[in-house]
Amino acid sequence: MEYTAKIKVELKTGMLDPEAITIEKALDNLGFKASGFHTARLFTFKIEADTTEDATIQADLMCKKLLANPVIHNYSIEVIR
Amino acid sequence: MEYTAKIKVELKTGMLDPEAITIEKALDNLGFKASGFHTARLFTFKIEADTTEDATIQADLMCKKLLANPVIHNYSIEVIR
Repeated sequence: MEYTAKIKVELKTGMLDPEAITIEKALDNLGFKASGFHTARLFTFKIEADTTEDATIQADLMCKKLLANPVIHNYSIEVIR
Repeated sequence: MEYTAKIKVELKTGMLDPEAITIEKALDNLGFKASGFHTARLFTFKIEADTTEDATIQADLMCKKLLANPVIHNYSIEVIR
């Protein structure tokens, strides 16, 4: 069966997020007042699997091996049939 | 009042997504079967505004001026009190 996996990868709390700092400064220069900027990456794709559990396990392995760096990233997985 | 804005920026349909192609190839090399890979960026931040509408207008302007390139990107805005 084909499942859709949605994976959100973000930096762990306390990790320096230079992109967020840069965007916040740029927004300030443009006259906007935004604070607490936080960035994340979203990956959506299709997996062939027998069950939702199997698809989630596959997606988790993909995160551990390629999509996220477990030392600095948190990730969340959502699998939809 | 302080509102939380969540902005999702993704490439328009038909735009080349080299990052997605590279990840899909890498996953294939690792023995995973994933297809239809799609990447997006997620920005979360706080805005000072009087109403939800005002916060949404501000967030929309931020997208147009800095966070997204309207020529190649689609973006969606979610504002929570």
